[in-house]
Amino acid sequence: MTEKLIVTPHNPRHKGVKQISIGQGQSTKVNANIGTSADFPDVDDELKKLEAAVEAGADTIMDLSTGGDISAIRKRILAACSLPLGTVPVYQAMVEKRMTTEGMFEVVEEQARDGVDFMTIHCGVTFESIGRLKKQPRLMEVVSRGGAAMIKWIVDNKAENPYYLQYDRLLEIALKYDITLSLGDGMRPGSIIDAGDQAQIQELIILGDLTKRAWDAGVQVIIEGPGHVPYDQIESQIKMQKEICKGAPFYVLGPLPTDVAPGYDHITAAIGGTLAACAGADFLCYVTPTEHLGLPTAEDVKEGVIASRIAAHCADIVKGVKGAKEWDYEMSKARKELNWAKQLELAIDPVKAREIHGKRTRDARHATGDTCTMCGEFCAYKVSSAALSA
Amino acid sequence: MTEKLIVTPHNPRHKGVKQISIGQGQSTKVNANIGTSADFPDVDDELKKLEAAVEAGADTIMDLSTGGDISAIRKRILAACSLPLGTVPVYQAMVEKRMTTEGMFEVVEEQARDGVDFMTIHCGVTFESIGRLKKQPRLMEVVSRGGAAMIKWIVDNKAENPYYLQYDRLLEIALKYDITLSLGDGMRPGSIIDAGDQAQIQELIILGDLTKRAWDAGVQVIIEGPGHVPYDQIESQIKMQKEICKGAPFYVLGPLPTDVAPGYDHITAAIGGTLAACAGADFLCYVTPTEHLGLPTAEDVKEGVIASRIAAHCADIVKGVKGAKEWDYEMSKARKELNWAKQLELAIDPVKAREIHGKRTRDARHATGDTCTMCGEFCAYKVSSAALSA
Repeated sequence: MTEKLIVTPHNPRHKGVKQISIGQGQSTKVNANIGTSADFPDVDDELKKLEAAVEAGADTIMDLSTGGDISAIRKRILAACSLPLGTVPVYQAMVEKRMTTEGMFEVVEEQARDGVDFMTIHCGVTFESIGRLKKQPRLMEVVSRGGAAMIKWIVDNKAENPYYLQYDRLLEIALKYDITLSLGDGMRPGSIIDAGDQAQIQELIILGDLTKRAWDAGVQVIIEGPGHVPYDQIESQIKMQKEICKGAPFYVLGPLPTDVAPGYDHITAAIGGTLAACAGADFLCYVTPTEHLGLPTAEDVKEGVIASRIAAHCADIVKGVKGAKEWDYEMSKARKELNWAKQLELAIDPVKAREIHGKRTRDARHATGDTCTMCGEFCAYKVSSAALSA
Repeated sequence: MTEKLIVTPHNPRHKGVKQISIGQGQSTKVNANIGTSADFPDVDDELKKLEAAVEAGADTIMDLSTGGDISAIRKRILAACSLPLGTVPVYQAMVEKRMTTEGMFEVVEEQARDGVDFMTIHCGVTFESIGRLKKQPRLMEVVSRGGAAMIKWIVDNKAENPYYLQYDRLLEIALKYDITLSLGDGMRPGSIIDAGDQAQIQELIILGDLTKRAWDAGVQVIIEGPGHVPYDQIESQIKMQKEICKGAPFYVLGPLPTDVAPGYDHITAAIGGTLAACAGADFLCYVTPTEHLGLPTAEDVKEGVIASRIAAHCADIVKGVKGAKEWDYEMSKARKELNWAKQLELAIDPVKAREIHGKRTRDARHATGDTCTMCGEFCAYKVSSAALSA
C-alpha cells in the first residue's frame, strides 16, 4: 500500500485540465460548487458562474446540477472548464430515477467517461452509521443531499449501500479512468447543535477503512468533512479525521461555526475554514452568501471564492507555504510606500479594491502616491516615518 | 485596589445612553468607528453611518472625525447616539493644532464635558517604547494615527508623552466625568510581518502598569490590542495581554491575519476576531470593506458591523454566553421545519436574508414552508426525515 497524502485530480479524458495538488505540504485549495437546480435549470447561468469562479481564483469546480439535462450540462461545463471538475454522481441517478445498483454504477462510469476528475461518493452511509443516527437522534437529520439519497435507498430497499457493498467495483472504475474519489460525509450534521455526534464519527471510522482499501488499489482519495461545527470543536475534529484517515487529504465544507448568519455564510465559512486549514484541512469547499437561502448567482460565486481564498491564505501563512507570507510582505511594502498602483495590483481581488478606492477618491493625489481619504494628511505612515527619520 | 474586570462605559452627561457591559463573563461586544475626514467632512454622512451601525447591532460607536468642525460634529453625533460613544481626543488636538500639554488635556476635558463615554488615549507611546521601535526597525513604522501623533510630539518636543507623564491628571478627569479610559495601542504593527515585536510588547508592559494605577484611582480601563497578527500568534498574544494587564477588558482591532485582502478586510477581521474573542478578547472593533482604501460609506459600516457580530457570536457560543447557542438551536429548528418566516426573522441580518431569499424564489412554495431553490424536491431534510421516520 502506498499512502497518497497528496492527490492530483485529473481524468486524462478531461483535456487540458490544470494539475492541482491537494494535501500534505501543498497550499490550501478552494473548491467552488456550481450547478443547476429544478428551479434554475439554465446551463448558461452555470457557465457564467464557472467563469466567475475561475476569475476569482478557485482551484477546482464541482458541478452539482440537479435540474435540466444533467449529462448535457456536465458536458458543456467540462468543455469550458480548465480546472479539475468534480461531481456527485448519485444526484444524476436520483434525478433520472436510476436508483438501482446497476443504475448507480452506470452513472459513475458515464461521468468518468465524460472526463470528470473527481467524484463524491457517499460510501460511509451504511446500516451501521444509520443505526448510530437512530440511536442518538439529531435536531436536524441529514443535510447532505447525497447522504439523504443513500439513506432513502437503504431504507426503501432494506439493503446495504451499493457503493459500500461493492466498493471494489467503484475502485476499479476509479482506477480505470484515473478518477480521484472524494469519500462524502453524508452524515455531517446540519447544525452546530448536532456536531460531532455518533453518526458523524461512525461514518468517519468507515471512511478510514475505505481510505486504506483505496490506497491498496492505487486509487487517490480525499475525505470530506463537516459542515456545521462550533469553533472550539473544529481543531479536534480535523485532527481526529486526519488520524483516522491516516493523513489522507481532507476536504471541509466551510465549516460553519454558527447557524444564524444566512446571507453571510461565506464569512462564517471563512472563519471556520481558516481554523480548519490551520489544523490540517487541505481543501476548502466554499460557501456563498446565498447558502441556506437559494441557488447562488455568479456574483455570489465570486464572493464565496474570495472569502474562502482569504481563509486558505491566512492558513497558508501559518502552514509556512512558500510564497504565502511573501505576498503579505509585498503588500505591506507597497502600503508603506503609499504605492497605490502596487497595492491595488497585489490585492486578492484587484477589481473590487480598485472600485472601492476609486469611489472614495476626491482628487488625483492617490494615483500619485499620496494618502487615502480615511486619514488624509494625518496618515499614520507618513507622520511616523517622518518623525522617526527626523 | 479593586480590579475592574467588567467596564460599563457611560458618561452621566450623555443622557439616555444604553448600559453596555464589556469584560469577563459578558457577551463579546462590537464597536463601529465612524467620523469625518478632511476629504469627506459632512456630518450628515456620519449620522447616516451612525444609524446604519445601530441598525446592524453595534454595541458602541467611536467618532474618529478629523475633518470639518470636530466639536460640532461630535455634539451632533452624541445627541443622536444612544450607545456609548468613544473618541480619540488627540485627533482633535492634532487637527486644531492644540498639541501642547495644556491643549491636549483641555481637549480631553472638553470632550468629557460634552458627554463622551470612553476615550482612547495613547499613554504607552513613550521614550521607552519608541526606543524599542528604533532598536528593532519595522517594515511599516506606525499605523495608529494617535500613536503616530504621539511619536511626532515626543520627537518634536524632545519630551515625554504628556498623557503618560501626567497620567494622574488624566485619571482625575476620567474619575470626575466617569469616563472609561481605553489605553490605545499606538505601537500596534501595521503588517503581519511586524507582529509581536519589541515596541508592541514594550507598550503592553507599560499599559499593564497603567491598568493598575487606573484601578487604584477607581477608573475603568480597557486595553487596546492589535491589529495585524498572523493567525497562529493571535491566541498567545491575547493570553499574554490578559496576563500582563491582570484581566482588564481587552479591545482588539480586527485582528487581521493577512494584509492582502483590501476590499474584504471585514472578512479578514471576522476570521481574526473570532479567534481573538475565543482566546479572551472582550470587545471587537469592526473593520469595514474599505479599510486600507478609503473612508467607509453607510453600507460599508453595516457590512463591517455584521461581520464582527458573526465573529462575536461564534466566540460567544464557545464562551458559553447565555442565549448564544440557543439562537443557533432556534435557527436549526426553523430550518428543520422548513419554516422560512422564522428562519428569516432569526437571521443576524433579516433584511439581507429576505432580500436574497426573495430574489431566488420562483414560486409561492417557499412562503408556505417548502424547500428552497437550491435543492428543490431533493431537499436533504425532507428526504432524510421521511426515510428515517418510515
